[in-house]
Amino acid sequence: MRERSNIRRMAGYVPGARPTQPAIRLNTNENPLEPSPAAIAAIADITPTMLQRYPDPRAAALCKAIAGYHALSPDQVLATNGSDELLRLAVTTFADPGKAIGILDPGYDLYGVLSAIQDCPLARVSLDDNWLPPEDAATCWNEAGARLVLIANPQAPSGRLLPREWLLRVAAGLDGVLLVDEAYVDFVDPALQYGLTEEIGRVPNLILSRTLSKGHALAGLRLGYGLGPADLIAPMKDKVRDSYNVDAIAQHVACAALVDTGQAKKSWDLVRAERQRLAGALGVLGIETLPSQANFLLARIPSVFGGAQELHDALAARRIYVRRLTAPRLAPFLRISVGAPEENNALIAAIESLLPQSGQST
Amino acid sequence: MRERSNIRRMAGYVPGARPTQPAIRLNTNENPLEPSPAAIAAIADITPTMLQRYPDPRAAALCKAIAGYHALSPDQVLATNGSDELLRLAVTTFADPGKAIGILDPGYDLYGVLSAIQDCPLARVSLDDNWLPPEDAATCWNEAGARLVLIANPQAPSGRLLPREWLLRVAAGLDGVLLVDEAYVDFVDPALQYGLTEEIGRVPNLILSRTLSKGHALAGLRLGYGLGPADLIAPMKDKVRDSYNVDAIAQHVACAALVDTGQAKKSWDLVRAERQRLAGALGVLGIETLPSQANFLLARIPSVFGGAQELHDALAARRIYVRRLTAPRLAPFLRISVGAPEENNALIAAIESLLPQSGQST
Repeated sequence: MRERSNIRRMAGYVPGARPTQPAIRLNTNENPLEPSPAAIAAIADITPTMLQRYPDPRAAALCKAIAGYHALSPDQVLATNGSDELLRLAVTTFADPGKAIGILDPGYDLYGVLSAIQDCPLARVSLDDNWLPPEDAATCWNEAGARLVLIANPQAPSGRLLPREWLLRVAAGLDGVLLVDEAYVDFVDPALQYGLTEEIGRVPNLILSRTLSKGHALAGLRLGYGLGPADLIAPMKDKVRDSYNVDAIAQHVACAALVDTGQAKKSWDLVRAERQRLAGALGVLGIETLPSQANFLLARIPSVFGGAQELHDALAARRIYVRRLTAPRLAPFLRISVGAPEENNALIAAIESLLPQSGQST
Repeated sequence: MRERSNIRRMAGYVPGARPTQPAIRLNTNENPLEPSPAAIAAIADITPTMLQRYPDPRAAALCKAIAGYHALSPDQVLATNGSDELLRLAVTTFADPGKAIGILDPGYDLYGVLSAIQDCPLARVSLDDNWLPPEDAATCWNEAGARLVLIANPQAPSGRLLPREWLLRVAAGLDGVLLVDEAYVDFVDPALQYGLTEEIGRVPNLILSRTLSKGHALAGLRLGYGLGPADLIAPMKDKVRDSYNVDAIAQHVACAALVDTGQAKKSWDLVRAERQRLAGALGVLGIETLPSQANFLLARIPSVFGGAQELHDALAARRIYVRRLTAPRLAPFLRISVGAPEENNALIAAIESLLPQSGQST
């Protein structure tokens, strides 16, 4: 084996199963609606010349559109091939091999995979029984020597939203860079007044990661971006990034999507309403869910179903896919994406039919 | 500054200038023709669902198409977001930080940039006066402890083709992995019977890098791939690669391009003919070029033009863009992409008009 020893020892990230036959896909947190009509229409603008010629390596027009969307400046924006790339660029740029990367535990598996690729140990800070982090997290990470901390907010896989004040205290206390992965932020209830974009540039060590995959229903396009102070964006953008990391089509379609956001906003409202309805319906069936501000629910599967794996398999047999997670603490749980109303109805009906008493009561 | 010290010290790769106004672009080695009609038509197949849903993370259908194209098996193929990504994956997977990466000098600047990002020193083997490498290159790289050697063939920026026998001897003698970057291989004269794809799997440490950017005129799409023995492809594909590295559109369009290769083959013939014609015309103007099997010519600019930078600037003022290169040995040269006949004619006419005697003789 010729790969490096850290690569040999590690396991790769395993994305959710992708059924090839028609199925209800509630396992990868996709948006239940189609993308914006303008984004779809933008595909028709693609000319042979756009394919033939290299795209703008720095995606200037797109960075300007993203900057406008968030009232920031283009040098505070880095467009990437999905937010996966932004996370990887942050690891490569800020985390020396051998130095710790800070995470919350349980968290998004990918952070551990990216750390292992960079040969960085993990400094894990455990969530409490309410799935919330301790107040002294920054101190723990500093003591571990972490140069970079990766936190998803809303969190994955719990769906819980961490308060912006807690994140700002962590950033202020941290010796390293804090990257807040806001993949699911579009689904947060606006009444909560969560928002960190206005802190970009004010907080010197804060980077946000965003994606069009979730809130804008463009998972197939691969378009993410980073927001941060110009001096943190610059080394990722000018040095570490692959030269032509975002293709010409993605640059063009993403610009259209960021102008025409009516459909996306409709999907955010739909997800919020369906999230509440689905949580309620699951509760009636004895399945408790964590309070979520994302487009998924972390559901504790009671023993009546024989266990989380058993319910997962029984649903898969009915062509409904939900997500099993690997961490020991997550063994009793399934992560369920909030789908379109008819998808959620099908899930509820399927689970109901799997309840032992459901068969007996007829 | 919060970036790692190796990132702070390095400079990023600088792609060729990308004029925003209409211009003759002979500075980034794009294909002079449009992509295949099937690839262009495939854009119209893109459905809203393809945008909404995650693409196949492993690009199975595309890897199968690539494998079929080269008479290999899909586990010997890794599809990437341009061949830049394949090169980076090889560095991340096979080259430990602090260990050398082998290159030929002068070579493609990007290899030095990727090595600096990984914090690997370069083990440079110098080309001789004929721009050819020494016979003992593998020994030099072994003595430097190189775990990975990156060689472009046809070479960049000289355009010279290294014999396959030399490359196979290097692979046989090398302790590490040999990655041959065949970005320009489609333009090689078939009469030379160059070809390494049939060695994939036979030579245990040989990886080839390919791209659709050059030979298939799809630079805007970002689609590259690696070919190698399954045990070298697997760690890059299963562990180090970003999960959804190739978007849904690129997977679909690339499959179409690999089936409908008539237009691409036409472009290869055109480039070969124009390469010879352009080299001859430049020779008449006193500009000597190296024997090239790529879609560009490395041209030595005689002093009558005042120097390579001066000719570059004078052409740019006429909206004709060619490429300046940074290495000291390359100071007297310009790299000129072989364009469409009318583009090459415009270049020749512009250079002719810049010859001092041309003005005097009228």
